[in-house]
Amino acid sequence: MAGKIYLIPMTLGDIPVENVIPDIVKRIINSIDVYIVENVRTTRRYLSKCGIEKPINELVFFELNKFTKPHELEKYIEPIFQNQNIGIVSEAGIAGVADPGAEIVKLAHKKGIQVVPLSGPSSIILALSASGMNGQNFAFNGYLPVNSDERKKQILFLEKRSKTENQAQIFMETPYRNNQMIDDILSICNLETNLCIATDITLDTEFIRTQNIQLWKVNKPNLNKRPTIFIIMSK
Amino acid sequence: MAGKIYLIPMTLGDIPVENVIPDIVKRIINSIDVYIVENVRTTRRYLSKCGIEKPINELVFFELNKFTKPHELEKYIEPIFQNQNIGIVSEAGIAGVADPGAEIVKLAHKKGIQVVPLSGPSSIILALSASGMNGQNFAFNGYLPVNSDERKKQILFLEKRSKTENQAQIFMETPYRNNQMIDDILSICNLETNLCIATDITLDTEFIRTQNIQLWKVNKPNLNKRPTIFIIMSK
Repeated sequence: MAGKIYLIPMTLGDIPVENVIPDIVKRIINSIDVYIVENVRTTRRYLSKCGIEKPINELVFFELNKFTKPHELEKYIEPIFQNQNIGIVSEAGIAGVADPGAEIVKLAHKKGIQVVPLSGPSSIILALSASGMNGQNFAFNGYLPVNSDERKKQILFLEKRSKTENQAQIFMETPYRNNQMIDDILSICNLETNLCIATDITLDTEFIRTQNIQLWKVNKPNLNKRPTIFIIMSK
Repeated sequence: MAGKIYLIPMTLGDIPVENVIPDIVKRIINSIDVYIVENVRTTRRYLSKCGIEKPINELVFFELNKFTKPHELEKYIEPIFQNQNIGIVSEAGIAGVADPGAEIVKLAHKKGIQVVPLSGPSSIILALSASGMNGQNFAFNGYLPVNSDERKKQILFLEKRSKTENQAQIFMETPYRNNQMIDDILSICNLETNLCIATDITLDTEFIRTQNIQLWKVNKPNLNKRPTIFIIMSK
């Protein structure tokens, strides 16, 4: 008998769990004894916020980050073969998308272990849905280069591709560099190009607006340290 | 005073609402009197499944589909300016992504109306998260061409791009043509290319597996009429 791997979503900030997480998550965490997580402390706090009924100090936590070695991953998933379920908890949003959990999922498929994704907030999809841009054809490009010249080159490439392929181009930046990002976008994109800025998604301070570069130029928001998704779509 | 547009998510099939929809949705639908929807009948049924407390026959429903004309959209959003909230309800999953609701959202941004996306199940993101593939760089390509020759050409293009750009390529097919789709993929992709098949996501019959084409060839699933997301990633 084998257990399953559950991908447990987390809120995108300090908001009530019921705003973005379905009730089933509260039920499923009571069937899990072993967790593979990026940060044990935040995971404990989150599980208790979800109203977990198991004693948290009886749970097993394995830490997964860029220092984790491949042979350790093998060890982490061993409990599966003793019929135990494992939970992978993201630090924010959907587990396994753009976080180290993907390495565990990859290994799970090699071993024929069932992976069950649980619904939760995805800043990428929520931004796209509220942008009014092309949801039939889009690409998420993760973080752009840090160097300003390379970043500008990449922004221009994405602006061009959004036009030639009619594909909305989504990307992000480390929050403390958001203002440099918006400066770069406004300095090089076509005035007619549409830009969606989606900030603090699902939080009380949420701000989501789509307009062209010309309009953004006369009304530039301060995005410093606020998690933001950018989407561009050239006309 | 202006109301807001809420993007209301729906389950991906006939399952309990609490499996995928956060509680806040139940609260928010009680603050909405006007809905813009693809199908009035399924929306009424869904709102009642969510435990709506307002009398459903006192709600206003506007139908939005490919026959809806631009000047009708303007009329649909008028209640916003009388301080009423409007709900856009998807037929499945997140509203506004790959559904006609995006047209209303586009108009909302032009008029400066606030659009609030609510968290729910996205088959695209759930499939990606459970695939173990690259969540830092991916593209959703919607439906591929129906014609088999053109479809094969497009599959080869996506297989190549997944390699040259290290970008996971996501696409789908009308469920009754899924078996033709998988036949086409297996007949032309490289044996080493990884394919994730994610079927009946969030349903009791959920099936999600990532393996290479060679392994899929000896173990081809029957996907007829089962909603499926395909993801390819060349090595």
